[in-house]
Amino acid sequence: MINIGVVGATGLVGRKMLEVLEERNFPIGKIRLFATSKSAGQKIKFKNELIEVEDASNSSFKGLDIALFSAGKEASKNIAPKVVADGCVVIDNGSYWRMDKNVPLVVPEVNPEDAFKHQGIIANPNCSTIQLVVVLKPLNDKFGIKRVVVSTYQSISGAGQKGLNQLYSELKGETPKDRISNQQIAFNTVFHAISDDSLYSEEEIKMINETRKILNYPDLKISVTCVRLPITGGHSESVNIEFEKEIHLDEITDTLKNVKGVVVLDEPKKEIYPTPILAENKDEVFVGRIRRDTSIDNGINLWVVSDNLRKGAATNAVQIAELLIRK
Amino acid sequence: MINIGVVGATGLVGRKMLEVLEERNFPIGKIRLFATSKSAGQKIKFKNELIEVEDASNSSFKGLDIALFSAGKEASKNIAPKVVADGCVVIDNGSYWRMDKNVPLVVPEVNPEDAFKHQGIIANPNCSTIQLVVVLKPLNDKFGIKRVVVSTYQSISGAGQKGLNQLYSELKGETPKDRISNQQIAFNTVFHAISDDSLYSEEEIKMINETRKILNYPDLKISVTCVRLPITGGHSESVNIEFEKEIHLDEITDTLKNVKGVVVLDEPKKEIYPTPILAENKDEVFVGRIRRDTSIDNGINLWVVSDNLRKGAATNAVQIAELLIRK
Repeated sequence: MINIGVVGATGLVGRKMLEVLEERNFPIGKIRLFATSKSAGQKIKFKNELIEVEDASNSSFKGLDIALFSAGKEASKNIAPKVVADGCVVIDNGSYWRMDKNVPLVVPEVNPEDAFKHQGIIANPNCSTIQLVVVLKPLNDKFGIKRVVVSTYQSISGAGQKGLNQLYSELKGETPKDRISNQQIAFNTVFHAISDDSLYSEEEIKMINETRKILNYPDLKISVTCVRLPITGGHSESVNIEFEKEIHLDEITDTLKNVKGVVVLDEPKKEIYPTPILAENKDEVFVGRIRRDTSIDNGINLWVVSDNLRKGAATNAVQIAELLIRK
Repeated sequence: MINIGVVGATGLVGRKMLEVLEERNFPIGKIRLFATSKSAGQKIKFKNELIEVEDASNSSFKGLDIALFSAGKEASKNIAPKVVADGCVVIDNGSYWRMDKNVPLVVPEVNPEDAFKHQGIIANPNCSTIQLVVVLKPLNDKFGIKRVVVSTYQSISGAGQKGLNQLYSELKGETPKDRISNQQIAFNTVFHAISDDSLYSEEEIKMINETRKILNYPDLKISVTCVRLPITGGHSESVNIEFEKEIHLDEITDTLKNVKGVVVLDEPKKEIYPTPILAENKDEVFVGRIRRDTSIDNGINLWVVSDNLRKGAATNAVQIAELLIRK
């Protein structure tokens, strides 16, 4: 049995982690929950037991085997190394460690072998990256990817409970107390934060860099536009791919149908295709609208949808933990 | 003074046409309103006057100079030719005539000269096409477009009042009486209808064919994915463009800033960029997020937003009428 810690247990992703651990019957010995001092003392239910949340900043993690982190940048930066020093492996959902060359960035369907190269910390990729690489990997193996152009259609839940609160307030016609953007979210499109040194948003830069790292394809040609929408669960992606090799549409579909964790839903005439509503609370990556892009020789368009809080975060982190304990 | 008919006056676009005619002070002599027999008899206000809607199918259009049509496919097919025979020029917002080689397809900022080649009917392009070509045309003239990849973020108002009704019902937790898709629209992404003979939706095919016709660039390489969102006003487009010539980002921005009808809003660090909320009830095409796509030599990404019922439909039709009377 494995002793587990969940750091950031009161947040959207932390709560999903608990749900997923319970559902998947993860072989838990002891479980301890942590958050910032602000949320410490709250009680959260796990398997019929009420567990008091501890302050992550001044707790010892000794005796724990694996800690799942989703507690913001400061916790990743400052607390994770202490947890590792206490002899516990950290699987961190935050972005702080993802591009560190000593930290593997893992999607179990794509690069499971990398998980075992860890030096204490394993990074969980960005939500929009995870669902993309699950689809790109088998296609790259078979047909060689030349270039990818992605536009995302992201759930505001990617901005946490505050993002959802802003949307719900606006839909009720109330002035939001919580706010993640000066722009209105209801009935609108907004972009992720854009930092000072780039015209690209941090989300867009993450998708580019993380995709290259996970696929071990450092010079992959990829262009990304990330957009947030008034959608509460599930990210969608419009993906245009150019291949090196000649492709047939049937082979693309067959390849994807044979990938564990991928579900192909592609009968558009019957309105059967992936949607965020359909993907919500599921662990798979859903693919549809697979069709040839006639503007290039070996091009396709497809539509990729997944629950950003589950496969895009909590489920992927738990799957990494499962990888570790299986060995 | 010009005698004007509005056919489909009770619909979403028809009502916008009346708004736009009034706002722009179009030099109207007489105005008559038409709809299907079902809506005939209704009274609609125009400039402080209540006008009774006539049945388009059994009215004479003699004495009218220009008829603005937005009344569905059957009206375009069957009624428009009779209206032309009555000596009236038809400006049709529907798709029926758009690809007819004897019918000009006109966006006044792009191909005004084509309007004067009409044989009685001038077609108004699809909403998502109009805002795209307004941006592509000046860039193609200056840098030569090699290939375009577009993903759209479209308002459900593009499906008319029924689409809006479905969304509003769903947001209130009610079962919609009106329905334009079996999929839920609230908190979701849906696709336009997909016909039997293609994996592309009719909307996607329209965007490809119409863009080529308006730009007079029949072999333009263009790939399109069209998506409908729980947004009530305004279409957005994520546009990736590869150019023949070497580009500098400043030149792209300057070129677009000098286009009549285009507004560049591009200070993303300050959250200043085009959104559907901002574009609603405006006539311009808004462009932002202009940035280099480093995955190709001469590539850019940009974000294009416009009010689909105004510049995407009513305003463009009225602008075509203004072209005709100016001559």
